[in-house]
Amino acid sequence: MEDRHISKAVIARLPRYYRYLGILIENKVERISSGELSRIMKVTASQIRQDLNNFGGFGQQGYGYNVKYLYQEIGRLLGLERTYHMIIIGAGNLGQALANYVKFEKRGFRIIGIFDRDPKLEGKTIRDIPVMMTSDLEEFLSENEVDIAALTLPRSGAEELCPLLVKNGIHGIWNFAHTDLIVPDDVIVENVHLSESLMQLSYRLNEAHMVKEAEKAAIEE
Amino acid sequence: MEDRHISKAVIARLPRYYRYLGILIENKVERISSGELSRIMKVTASQIRQDLNNFGGFGQQGYGYNVKYLYQEIGRLLGLERTYHMIIIGAGNLGQALANYVKFEKRGFRIIGIFDRDPKLEGKTIRDIPVMMTSDLEEFLSENEVDIAALTLPRSGAEELCPLLVKNGIHGIWNFAHTDLIVPDDVIVENVHLSESLMQLSYRLNEAHMVKEAEKAAIEE
Repeated sequence: MEDRHISKAVIARLPRYYRYLGILIENKVERISSGELSRIMKVTASQIRQDLNNFGGFGQQGYGYNVKYLYQEIGRLLGLERTYHMIIIGAGNLGQALANYVKFEKRGFRIIGIFDRDPKLEGKTIRDIPVMMTSDLEEFLSENEVDIAALTLPRSGAEELCPLLVKNGIHGIWNFAHTDLIVPDDVIVENVHLSESLMQLSYRLNEAHMVKEAEKAAIEE
Repeated sequence: MEDRHISKAVIARLPRYYRYLGILIENKVERISSGELSRIMKVTASQIRQDLNNFGGFGQQGYGYNVKYLYQEIGRLLGLERTYHMIIIGAGNLGQALANYVKFEKRGFRIIGIFDRDPKLEGKTIRDIPVMMTSDLEEFLSENEVDIAALTLPRSGAEELCPLLVKNGIHGIWNFAHTDLIVPDDVIVENVHLSESLMQLSYRLNEAHMVKEAEKAAIEE
C-alpha cells in the first residue's frame, strides 16, 4: 500500500472518517456504502471514494465498506496502533485541559509528564501525572523516551524551548503557542492556533453580515 | 471590493498574514515586498500575491505593500473592526483557558458570560466574568445580544444545547465538542477538534517512521 504523497487535505479528513466509523461500530453497523456514508458525513460519495482510493480503496464494488475493517485500517494509517509518550509543557488552563482529557490515553497518547516554570506547582500532580520544573526538562528527556511535546505556553517560551526539544530527540510537536516554530525537516509540528480559528469565525460572520446589509440596501432601493 | 466566494484555504491563511504583519509593525517595518514577506512566512511570493489579489491586491507594483495599510485591511476582512459578544459554555479547564486568554478581548471578542451545569460554580467569576448556570442560559440570551458561543463541553451537551442557541439568535458557534453540529445555513460553526489535530500529528509521525524503516531495510538488503 502506497502511503506517501497524500495531500494534507486528505490527511486532515481521515480523523473525521475515523470518528464516524467509530460511531457506526457503536451502533453495530457492519457494512456501509459510500452513498450512505456520504449522507451521514455530509460530503459527496465521490470525495469519500477518492479519499480512500489514496490508500488502496478498502471497498468492494457493490458491497460497500466493511465498517470495522475500514475503521482499523484508518486507525493504522493514523498511527494509532502505536503508543506515543507525550509531555505537556505549560501547566496553565490549556495544559491542564489536555492533561485531563482521558480520551487521548485511549487512543495511545500516554502523557508521562507536565512541565512548568512556576515553583508553586512543583510536586503537584494532574490526574496522577507529575508536574515537574522546566529546568529539569533536559534531564527528563535524556532519561525518558518522549515522542510528542505539547506546547501550551506563551510564544516566547515555546520559541526558547523548541531547540532543546529538538536536540533531545523529540520528533513531534503539538504547538498551541501563537508562533511558527523553526525545526529541522525530520521534526513534525502540528499547530493549533486558537485565535486564528476565532478569526476565521469572525471572517465568516462578518461576510454574512455584509451580504445581509447589501441585500437590505438592494430591497430599499 | 469583491469579498464573496473566497476559498476556505485562503480565509484560513488570512489570520497568519495578520499575525506576521502585526509583528512587522511592532518592528517598525513600513513597507515590504511580496518576496521579503515570502521569505519570512515561508510561503511562495506568488501565493502571497494570489491570496491578496482575491481581495483586490493591496500592493503597488514595484513598491511592495504598505504594512500598516495591509494589516488594517486584513483586519477589516477578518471582521476585527467590530466587537463581538461571546459566551463560553462549559467552565472546565478548556473553557477557563479561553476565558483567561486576554488577547481575544484585544481583538474585539468580549466574553460576557460563562455557563456551566455544576452548581458549585454558581456565583464564581473567572477574570471578572460571571459563571452562570446553564439553566439560566435561555433567559440570558433573551436579555443580552450574543454573537458567538464557544462550546467547551462534552459532545452530548453540545448537541443538546445547539438548537437552543440557534433559536435564540446566535449566529456563530466556536465548537470544541467532538461532533459536527447540525445548524441552519445562516449559522456559522467553526470547529476545533483537538483529538483530530493530534491524530494528524500521529499520522505524520507514523508516516515518517515507516519511511525510515523502509530506508533501513533497503540499506540492509
